[in-house]
Amino acid sequence: MESYDFAIIGAGGTGLAAAMYGARLGLKTIVFGSTHGSEAAVGGVITTTNLVENYPGFKSISGFDLAKKIEEHAKEYKEVSIKNEKVIEVRKKGNLFILKTGKSEYSSRTILFATGTKWKKLDVKGAKEFEGRGVNYCALCDGPLYKGKIVAVVGGGDSAAKDALILAEHAKKVYIIYRGENIKPEPINLQKIKANKKIEVVTKTNITEIKGNDSGVGEVILDKLLNGKNKIELEGVFVAIGHEVLSELADKSGVKLNSKKEIVINHATSETNVLGIFAAGDVTDKHFKQLITGVADGCTAAYSAFEFIKKENLVE
Amino acid sequence: MESYDFAIIGAGGTGLAAAMYGARLGLKTIVFGSTHGSEAAVGGVITTTNLVENYPGFKSISGFDLAKKIEEHAKEYKEVSIKNEKVIEVRKKGNLFILKTGKSEYSSRTILFATGTKWKKLDVKGAKEFEGRGVNYCALCDGPLYKGKIVAVVGGGDSAAKDALILAEHAKKVYIIYRGENIKPEPINLQKIKANKKIEVVTKTNITEIKGNDSGVGEVILDKLLNGKNKIELEGVFVAIGHEVLSELADKSGVKLNSKKEIVINHATSETNVLGIFAAGDVTDKHFKQLITGVADGCTAAYSAFEFIKKENLVE
Repeated sequence: MESYDFAIIGAGGTGLAAAMYGARLGLKTIVFGSTHGSEAAVGGVITTTNLVENYPGFKSISGFDLAKKIEEHAKEYKEVSIKNEKVIEVRKKGNLFILKTGKSEYSSRTILFATGTKWKKLDVKGAKEFEGRGVNYCALCDGPLYKGKIVAVVGGGDSAAKDALILAEHAKKVYIIYRGENIKPEPINLQKIKANKKIEVVTKTNITEIKGNDSGVGEVILDKLLNGKNKIELEGVFVAIGHEVLSELADKSGVKLNSKKEIVINHATSETNVLGIFAAGDVTDKHFKQLITGVADGCTAAYSAFEFIKKENLVE
Repeated sequence: MESYDFAIIGAGGTGLAAAMYGARLGLKTIVFGSTHGSEAAVGGVITTTNLVENYPGFKSISGFDLAKKIEEHAKEYKEVSIKNEKVIEVRKKGNLFILKTGKSEYSSRTILFATGTKWKKLDVKGAKEFEGRGVNYCALCDGPLYKGKIVAVVGGGDSAAKDALILAEHAKKVYIIYRGENIKPEPINLQKIKANKKIEVVTKTNITEIKGNDSGVGEVILDKLLNGKNKIELEGVFVAIGHEVLSELADKSGVKLNSKKEIVINHATSETNVLGIFAAGDVTDKHFKQLITGVADGCTAAYSAFEFIKKENLVE
């Protein structure tokens, strides 16, 4: 069985940054690029963002290119192996963790869950076709690209409300399109939505199709009339119908989750409740989930794993 | 008086990243680049690192160039002003903070302390001349550059011990040179030092001069004989005689510090004990102080400041 010091489950920015840092600290490191339940392989969700303009040091870069840079950075170190295998089981054996994938088994002294989240996708005609070209899943990331334009947020929860508020800082008009009777953000956000003249809430309405051309989205078709028309001309659609935290395997491994199924960590050290298991990035109970914060958490987790191993060595 | 939403004291990576994020969130932001008591102007301590190889996305870049990139990223946004002025006083006036510099006064709705730390400099002949060319202040950052080489750590505290352990992962030989009777790291690190055959502890000894040539450091002169000679031939000197946290102004502003004079923060939000005042980066009570973690903290702090202002607006 191949044995490692540091096994990272998830190969998004968080996992790859952790691998680079782990290797620099002399840890023999393996990264599993196929997270359970997600299609995300190496690179993670950031690869679905058209332009990243908020990773300090890069004024503007595609999500794909930035993920590639972080991946290549990790691959600079011979201590790092990246496997495109899905970990399906973690068990303890003495001081080691055994990670079982569809293909093989590996042992490791520490584990990092960097499994991230999966955006719930909007399942209407055109949504997939225009993803990254008008259809977006991150208002904070992509909002500034819509300065002075018309956009819509799809969803009725607090995320949708917060996205609309962020978008109203940039866009000239923001529709919130929600299938239910009333949107249900936190009260404070509801009040802000009501006070904001740029935001118009359209309830009991669904988007049935997203249309556009080669340069991107041009309009959405509705299942109700709005101002006498069954469509809205706009350039951006932000989907905020929730995301799923990919924490099932952590849960099965005895790691504590909160009510949102996020992994509960010590925010100073990235430790979970299980000794030797760490978690970082979007899968954790972090306040503010962005690529830069996930990447930094990955580095912190690598350092904590290093400290843990050094301590264990001494005890043996 | 010029008025701002977000006033950042300190223009290192942390402060500049916070400015960029603040601006993206629509906050009118000012950054004060001359921190109190430090010589550090725009760019911060990272500018003293020869090569940065651990900022995910950049395989290898000079500290100066990386700081420049983060600075230029912040300057992309018209909402950001950078002033080369030293803030000497912070006081509250209604809902606002008034920041007094040597030149003027400014008001802001929130404040971020990103004042960082100052390395205590080694005060011997040659130390300044070879800084960045063999004389280093960060083992974790610069250690990998000394693979297979001979290095020395100056200092006898826990930082010196930890630096020596990190360096022993790369160098073939690591001297710890300490003026006192016994080095005083944490017990666990002392045991590791003793167990590590690459590390040799030289006590009751001072370096009196660092010598070298155009390609960098070549030897250090000692005030005692070691193996019959008063010098060691080596290529790297790591100074770990401590660093000073630049938290005096925060202290005077009512912000809570710990016993190490670090600002105590909520690690999930970057909040201090004072409403509307945040702190991020090396000046805080973080576990793991690196450029990448400071930069991410700066972004988190900007988002927390944004949330704070939005909430306050509603209350008014």
